[in-house]
Amino acid sequence: MKLYDYTGAPNPRRVKIFLAEKGVDVELVNCDLTKGEHKSPDFLKKNPSGKIPVLELDDGRCLAESVAICRYIENLHPEPNLFGADPFELGHIEMRNRQIELELWSQVGTSWVNGPIVARMGTFKQIPQAKEASDANVGRYYERLNDEFADSEYVAGDRFTIADITLLTAVDFAGAMVELKPDDSLGNLWRWHALVSGRPSVD
Amino acid sequence: MKLYDYTGAPNPRRVKIFLAEKGVDVELVNCDLTKGEHKSPDFLKKNPSGKIPVLELDDGRCLAESVAICRYIENLHPEPNLFGADPFELGHIEMRNRQIELELWSQVGTSWVNGPIVARMGTFKQIPQAKEASDANVGRYYERLNDEFADSEYVAGDRFTIADITLLTAVDFAGAMVELKPDDSLGNLWRWHALVSGRPSVD
Repeated sequence: MKLYDYTGAPNPRRVKIFLAEKGVDVELVNCDLTKGEHKSPDFLKKNPSGKIPVLELDDGRCLAESVAICRYIENLHPEPNLFGADPFELGHIEMRNRQIELELWSQVGTSWVNGPIVARMGTFKQIPQAKEASDANVGRYYERLNDEFADSEYVAGDRFTIADITLLTAVDFAGAMVELKPDDSLGNLWRWHALVSGRPSVD
Repeated sequence: MKLYDYTGAPNPRRVKIFLAEKGVDVELVNCDLTKGEHKSPDFLKKNPSGKIPVLELDDGRCLAESVAICRYIENLHPEPNLFGADPFELGHIEMRNRQIELELWSQVGTSWVNGPIVARMGTFKQIPQAKEASDANVGRYYERLNDEFADSEYVAGDRFTIADITLLTAVDFAGAMVELKPDDSLGNLWRWHALVSGRPSVD
């Protein structure tokens, strides 16, 4: 299997942490986003959406979308379990993962595409008011998470799951690339961040 | 089990179609969005995100997020299979479902919150430029889908899955509530729409 990757891109990072948790090795193929390689005709045959990561199987079939790739891997390699082990837990972990995606990651993404780095790339027609709103939404969501981590060690309860990978990559990307690092006062959120960042799978 | 619902809301509709496909009956509880019942303290205990649908189990545990609820039901009632029956199909259907959500539903949602109905509600600080961009993105995505349906009977291949429910509810909501009905010229998309709309589960 090959994973189309770009160093520093947050969605391939999600899959790479997941694979490391599973102990699954794949060949990494660099897809240079700065050269538009993800929009080339050859790449669009692998993923018509023109995004990375893409997992290419040995028979040539491809899967895109980070969580879809991870779910494929989970079903090939069930242990350690990262998506849930019974019907309720499968639903609960998916709910938490989706809440982080829809309520935090989507806002970090809006701040990113409307922010200064993408402005210099000139690849997106920016809307400053959208960034004002998403920046504020990110700050509010960090506060909600900080409250939740008062009672919960991990995002979806008392063990590490895919929802922690989703949150870690969002917070790290927001801090490094979008100037939306959580405030130092959010002690529970930072306690969780240190716990998860210390895992051998995370780099 | 109880499903917190509001007639006409597209996300509860996704779950209701899914439950009908499975032949699972649940009690529907009206959560009046126009009265803000989804933001009441009691409701926020069920779902801190303040959104419907929510599935409340007989023991009081709750699940939010449409697809998380559907995955719980899928694992309780595996037939008919709507999420995939082997590792690759589970990944492929999740990929297709997420593409519809991230590339179409998200844009329909942006057009909705920045459109005339929400303007009259006065519940959202609107950004007209965001609606211009999302309206155009929806139109482009309909054309992509129309091309894909030239070779594919359903969203994720040759059988009905959760990804069809996601697309149907997006297209119907976009047409009825956001003035973004697909153009009559998109014959493949409309062929799929008629096929799926004719299922007994769909109302």
